[in-house]
Formats: sequence, structure tokens, C-alpha cells
Amino acid sequence: LLEQISIVLVSTSHPGNIGGAARAMKNMGLGQLVLVQPKEFPHAEATARAAGADDVLAGAKVVGSLAEAVAPCHFVVGTSARQRTVSWPLCAPRQSVEKMLPILQAGQRVAVVFGNEQSGLSNEELALCHLHLHIPCEAQFSSLNVAAAVQIVTYELRLMQLAALPDSTSPVVEDEKLVTVAEMEQFYTRLEQVLLQIRYLKPNNPGKLMLRLRRLFNRAMLEAKEMQILRGLLNSIDDRMQEDR
Amino acid sequence: LLEQISIVLVSTSHPGNIGGAARAMKNMGLGQLVLVQPKEFPHAEATARAAGADDVLAGAKVVGSLAEAVAPCHFVVGTSARQRTVSWPLCAPRQSVEKMLPILQAGQRVAVVFGNEQSGLSNEELALCHLHLHIPCEAQFSSLNVAAAVQIVTYELRLMQLAALPDSTSPVVEDEKLVTVAEMEQFYTRLEQVLLQIRYLKPNNPGKLMLRLRRLFNRAMLEAKEMQILRGLLNSIDDRMQEDR
Repeated sequence: LLEQISIVLVSTSHPGNIGGAARAMKNMGLGQLVLVQPKEFPHAEATARAAGADDVLAGAKVVGSLAEAVAPCHFVVGTSARQRTVSWPLCAPRQSVEKMLPILQAGQRVAVVFGNEQSGLSNEELALCHLHLHIPCEAQFSSLNVAAAVQIVTYELRLMQLAALPDSTSPVVEDEKLVTVAEMEQFYTRLEQVLLQIRYLKPNNPGKLMLRLRRLFNRAMLEAKEMQILRGLLNSIDDRMQEDR
Repeated sequence: LLEQISIVLVSTSHPGNIGGAARAMKNMGLGQLVLVQPKEFPHAEATARAAGADDVLAGAKVVGSLAEAVAPCHFVVGTSARQRTVSWPLCAPRQSVEKMLPILQAGQRVAVVFGNEQSGLSNEELALCHLHLHIPCEAQFSSLNVAAAVQIVTYELRLMQLAALPDSTSPVVEDEKLVTVAEMEQFYTRLEQVLLQIRYLKPNNPGKLMLRLRRLFNRAMLEAKEMQILRGLLNSIDDRMQEDR
């Protein structure tokens, strides 16, 4: 799905931001960058900040207007910091991405547009969009760096794709084998025995402390390997107690 | 809730990234930045990229080690690109933030830690954490810029707060007092000492087993009362070892 999405940067002033955006895109699995009248491009600063996303920069299309950039697309999302006078449908990143999903699944092309660092997107540019995306920011400090905004949106797009793919490549936690309840009970019996031996537990009243320890170790959800370690540890205490008598 | 969170940058090489991280934090409503051995700070490039988040830079605490940075915190989240040999609980950003919420609502302090640009966090640094956060990236191009990673995590934290705010009298979490990282470190020092004493650990190579035990007890999120019990238990072993000699 991500290959149907173009990231469009309009009138970007700082070439470093173009590089930062390219890197963010590639990290998240996007590749199509369109630049509308960039102030300076190509530029060493863009290449430096891209940090290896050179292919994204090399493949970037430079065009003269936003209309030209989005002409081949079916759905256009404009990022907007401010509430405009003529209110457009305004969506948070996650909700915006949810609206893009069925469109992408239907095989259509989507553009996400980011404005100039100082002035954002003009009213005319926003009027070319189907939806305005707003990243929630602190009211007193609401101007996001443009590469940072690209990072947030492409991150949400990647999560969308991971969720949409049946066979998702999301980070898998190693499948550690948990212990059975029966093994836990054997452990608690042995633990109580050793704690009595070292006179940490009083023979007449082990209950309350053992309950606390059960609560702790049950909560931890022990894995087989950890159980081995704890049993070895109890054996060591036992051995020392035998030896030294 | 956000004021209970520290962003910790470890051994950052490029001062521009410190500035970018400060800007991302302020955009999302966070203010507490801790720098562990930054290569260059303060620096003009940091100030330039902060783009107005000067107060975050001015208030940044510079410390000598990660242990020092997280000592006052109750829950530590380390960002990790790679799967480590000893697998820690590994979470996506959204799930990580869900785990932080009840801890923050209970009034406790959380740190989110980001490693060096080239090498990330070391195994020793990751062992100080309760949870490893992994940002899902394209496998072939998985190295995120550190300020971009801060942007994604702080964005998720802001969404968490926005969702949590409406009913600020949300369900009350059990008010068990968690222990601080500093207390956990004292415990691990004492544990290692006792395990050497009972000859469970070999003096020349305590590392792997101690790492396993750290993983277990960090995952369990010890409460103050449980820490007391475990310390008492170690003291009993120690006493018996002294007596019987």
C-alpha cells in the first residue's frame, strides 16, 4: 500500500529538511517524494541529513506547482497547523490514515502534502486537498519541524500497513516458554523449605510472606530458563547450609 | 502526566539532534531533558535546531552516566533498534505508552532513553530498563534519526495524555508504591554480593546470570514492600553464612 503514497513538500526553504523527510520516509517504507519549488535542491545538506536515503532524493520529482504534483493522485491530504476560516474536514493523523486505507486498498493513489517552514500551506493549496490533517501540538509552541511532521505521518502510515497486512512484520517477542502452574508449585514448596532452613521464615507462621512472594513471582510470569536459574540458586543456598553444619 | 516524564539522550554525537529532540519535546508538551555525556553541549547547532525550545535546552540536566540519569525514576523505557540476545519485554510505541499510563497516573516518574546515533544503547544500558521500546522500521533501512525517534515517542505520549485528560478522575490504579531505579541498583549490588558468597555466581563471570535476574525483577516492577522482603531474605542468607563459619 505504501508505494501508492507520495509525500509532497511545498516550497521547502531548508534543504536539510528535505533530507530529513527523505530519511523518515525510507525508515517507514515510503519512497516517492515530490518537491514543489524547493528553494535549494539538490544540496549537500539534504544529502547529509538523508543519511543513506539517497535513492529517495535521487528519485524525487521537482515540479512547479502543487496542482501539478497532485494531478495523478486520487486523494490528497494537506497538513495544517492552523484552523482555517473556511473549515475543511480536519483530522488527527490516526484518523486521516484510517480514511486513506480503503482508498489505498482500492488501488488508488494518495498524496500527503506539507507546506513551507514559515507559512505552511496557503488557502489555495489547502483547497486542493480532500482532507486536512492536523498534528496535535502544544498550543503555545505549535510549529513542528517539517521533517518531524513527515516522520509522524509516515509512522502512522507504517502502522496502518502493518495492521492491514495479514502477515505483519511487526516486532515479534521471542517465544519464551513459560512454566506450568505445577512447576510453579514445586518451586514454591522448595522456596519455602529453603527459607525455613535459613530461618528467614518462622516455622509457625510462613503464610503471609510466602503469599507476598507468590504474588511477586506469579506476576513476573516466569520462563522455563528463569525457573532453572532460581532453582539453581536455591540449591546453592541448600548446599552451603549442609556444608557448614 | 507529561511533566513526570524525562527524555534521556545518551552520548549524543551531533548537537543538532539535541536541539531537534528539544523542539519535538516542547511541541508535544514535554519539558524535562537529561543528557548523558553529550559530545558537544551547549552548542550553536543545538540552539538553531531547537527553533525556540530554548527553555528546554537551558533546563537540560547534564550527567555522567545513565544510572545517574534514571536514579530518581520508577519506570525506565529504553528505545532499541535491535533484537538483543537476552530478550527483554519488547513493545511498540503505542503499547509502551499504554504501559506507562497507569504508572504516571499513580504519580510516579518515568524516563524514556535514547542511545547514541551510531551504536544505540549498550547491553548494560538496556539492562537498566524495565521495557524496551521498538519503533517499527523498514528492515533494510532501520536506523532512525534520534530526534525523529524522540518525535514519534513524544507524539504517542501526547496522544496518551489527550485521551487520558477528559475524565481526569479515571479509574484509580492500586496505589502500591514502586521502587526507584536507585533502590533497584542497591538491591542488585547486594544480590550479586550474596550470590557470590553462596558460590552460586562464579567471581570471574557473574554477567549473564545477573542479566537474567535483572530482566526478571525489572519485569516484575517491584513494590516497596516486596523490596523489603527480598532484602530481608538476602540478609538472612548472609547471617547464616557468617554464623556457620
